Amino acid sequence: MTLTKEVSNVKEQGKKAKKAAKTLCLLTTDEKNRALLTLAQHLEENYEKILEANERDLQKGREQNFEEAFMDRLALSKERVHEFAEGLRNVAKLDDPVGEELSSWTLDNGLGVKTVRVPLGVIGMIYEARPNVTVDATGLALKSGNAIILKGGSSALHSNGAIVDVIHEALDQTKIPRDAVQFISTANREATSELFTMKDEIDVLIPRGGASLINTVVNNASVPVLETGIGNCHLYVDHDADVKKALNIIINAKTDRPAVCNAAETLILHEEWLQSYQEELKKALSDAGITVHGDDKALAVFNDGYKAEEKDWKEEYLSLDLAIKVVSNIDEAIEHIEKYGTKHSEAIITENAEAANKFTTLVDAAALYHNASTRFTDGGALGFGAEIGISTQKLHARGPMGLPALTTVKYVMNGTGQIR
Amino acid sequence: MTLTKEVSNVKEQGKKAKKAAKTLCLLTTDEKNRALLTLAQHLEENYEKILEANERDLQKGREQNFEEAFMDRLALSKERVHEFAEGLRNVAKLDDPVGEELSSWTLDNGLGVKTVRVPLGVIGMIYEARPNVTVDATGLALKSGNAIILKGGSSALHSNGAIVDVIHEALDQTKIPRDAVQFISTANREATSELFTMKDEIDVLIPRGGASLINTVVNNASVPVLETGIGNCHLYVDHDADVKKALNIIINAKTDRPAVCNAAETLILHEEWLQSYQEELKKALSDAGITVHGDDKALAVFNDGYKAEEKDWKEEYLSLDLAIKVVSNIDEAIEHIEKYGTKHSEAIITENAEAANKFTTLVDAAALYHNASTRFTDGGALGFGAEIGISTQKLHARGPMGLPALTTVKYVMNGTGQIR
Repeated sequence: MTLTKEVSNVKEQGKKAKKAAKTLCLLTTDEKNRALLTLAQHLEENYEKILEANERDLQKGREQNFEEAFMDRLALSKERVHEFAEGLRNVAKLDDPVGEELSSWTLDNGLGVKTVRVPLGVIGMIYEARPNVTVDATGLALKSGNAIILKGGSSALHSNGAIVDVIHEALDQTKIPRDAVQFISTANREATSELFTMKDEIDVLIPRGGASLINTVVNNASVPVLETGIGNCHLYVDHDADVKKALNIIINAKTDRPAVCNAAETLILHEEWLQSYQEELKKALSDAGITVHGDDKALAVFNDGYKAEEKDWKEEYLSLDLAIKVVSNIDEAIEHIEKYGTKHSEAIITENAEAANKFTTLVDAAALYHNASTRFTDGGALGFGAEIGISTQKLHARGPMGLPALTTVKYVMNGTGQIR
Repeated sequence: MTLTKEVSNVKEQGKKAKKAAKTLCLLTTDEKNRALLTLAQHLEENYEKILEANERDLQKGREQNFEEAFMDRLALSKERVHEFAEGLRNVAKLDDPVGEELSSWTLDNGLGVKTVRVPLGVIGMIYEARPNVTVDATGLALKSGNAIILKGGSSALHSNGAIVDVIHEALDQTKIPRDAVQFISTANREATSELFTMKDEIDVLIPRGGASLINTVVNNASVPVLETGIGNCHLYVDHDADVKKALNIIINAKTDRPAVCNAAETLILHEEWLQSYQEELKKALSDAGITVHGDDKALAVFNDGYKAEEKDWKEEYLSLDLAIKVVSNIDEAIEHIEKYGTKHSEAIITENAEAANKFTTLVDAAALYHNASTRFTDGGALGFGAEIGISTQKLHARGPMGLPALTTVKYVMNGTGQIR
């Protein structure tokens, strides 16, 4: 009984969101910005309420012995709530993509044609136990004129619920209807599955989280999905690589933030380069606390490493583990990336411009790097201001997605009776 | 046994196409254009071979008593083959989207960032018994640097096979590998289903044909789909509509080419307008041979019409049938379109600019018209030169799709050792 009711509630929430989207798409940039600033202020004013709810999630997490990194992402503080608010203020400063005229022309018969950016409509956000996504995604959705349905990880249910309560109270003081932000407050999986097929109510699903979450959504949803973020990223060190650049980039791409999708997971080394610089590389990896999983040629150098198995080439470690493969030419490297890569971010380190060009042309991924760390595949780092995620698909938003990725286009034709 | 072999052949063809795509993406615009001109010439030179094969399909069609419109689309002639060739020559003249730099900037740390258009890779084209699609889709795919897998309707199997044979012979004289054009020469459905899940080999599936074909692909494919063309298009005649414009547009949108997706299927009339102009409209529809399926208010005027049932509001008639609904205001019209439309092309006829603006803003479709026929939703009519189809989805190619819709984007970063 309860189950059926909850599932049908989700559908009902979808309908409400769709209706709210119709109001939202008519608001001016100024109205949306003022609403975001109101949300920011309310979050700060009500931080205690949010922290109380968060403490309940943390308590449950401690009881279940969740690992430290998980608890870190879940834990809120006055300072973190302030950061959420600042995030919303930053989104308010970004250009509004809605209404932007991308092109316009007039046919010989006088028919005026223009293409205009419009909101997607209703965004379904499915994410893990990270309360910051609740605020970030809401801010980006509202600014781009979209309603949003939030389905966060169950371990953050109280925190997310409190945040959304505060958002709803704040929205009542703005032109944005509170129905524009829907929160799925049940932890049952049937509610998530219901979202997968709500084609009439949801325009796009955006999964954000680990490989298993993303794959579940991609494989089961009939609603279009913006596939984000699985990053099995490779660094290929060519035989002409500068040793200083190579070592800096390897250590940075692996260790700066190992748990994020643009961190490197596999290092591919040209055998000649390895031969020349094995001592330097060995010391650098060891100093950084990196655990090597290598093929036979790699293990001949990194003799305290583990033997890499098939799963090592596929895995997004998200830790200080690093798979190492040794190749005799760039083609082998490209082939390996083609076989195991997730089309996220791939880098070549070389002083040979021709090799760099070959790599960036032939490797099929959202972001290709020559002599730089893969860590730059990030809306913030690239100057987008904020991102909803990093697309690893090709149709047609690819790479870091800012506000424009949350819009689509409409052809608007103005005539005086034209017929064909 | 045969089945298994055929199915595994499809996978094999996918792998060959993927490999060929790697060669194709490196070709210059000039090399691709010269190849298209070679294809065009070969098609013209070998028209007899194509017509012979076509005669076999036609013979089979006559035996099975296929309807006239179907046979018309299937039938080839020396003139039609010449048109195919001219189509390829036109595609050769279009700008090459590949390599176009869409944006470029430099980060404060000196990292150069650019976004460049690149081919999608391998396109899977699934279509009905229209041999022209074999040529058109091949031309657009090759020009945009993509390999293509063709799965046409089984009733055109001989015609398509002969066309692809000629294309393959011609490709041998060009820089494009013949593997870049794969033809699924079996009529069994398992081969089509195999295409649905070949995520490693196919980057996008494009179904072209009727609602049932498109829905089958959309509902069963795990490969991303560019959803094209179901057009349940509406004309809404507001109370301020000019009668001459309205009648011209209604007749044109319904009768110019009833079988295409941008033809009108439902006419929504403001009751006051209908009252004022019922005699004129009745005469115009009758003169054009249009069969009315109306609601009660419509039938009070069109007394020789049929009573519209639920299915009439949903149907893409593709014939001289027209559903008619009478409303008392624009909101009712918008609501009806939201409920039954397919997000293709929707038109309002009115002299009231405010009503027009409301309609084009609130109706969610790829193309919105004010005082013009829906027939202009067409790559040719809009000046794109050629189109691969009309997208009715939102992510992110929408409306008529020319060459750019067959590309995606890559971020290419040029550094000197930048780390974060």
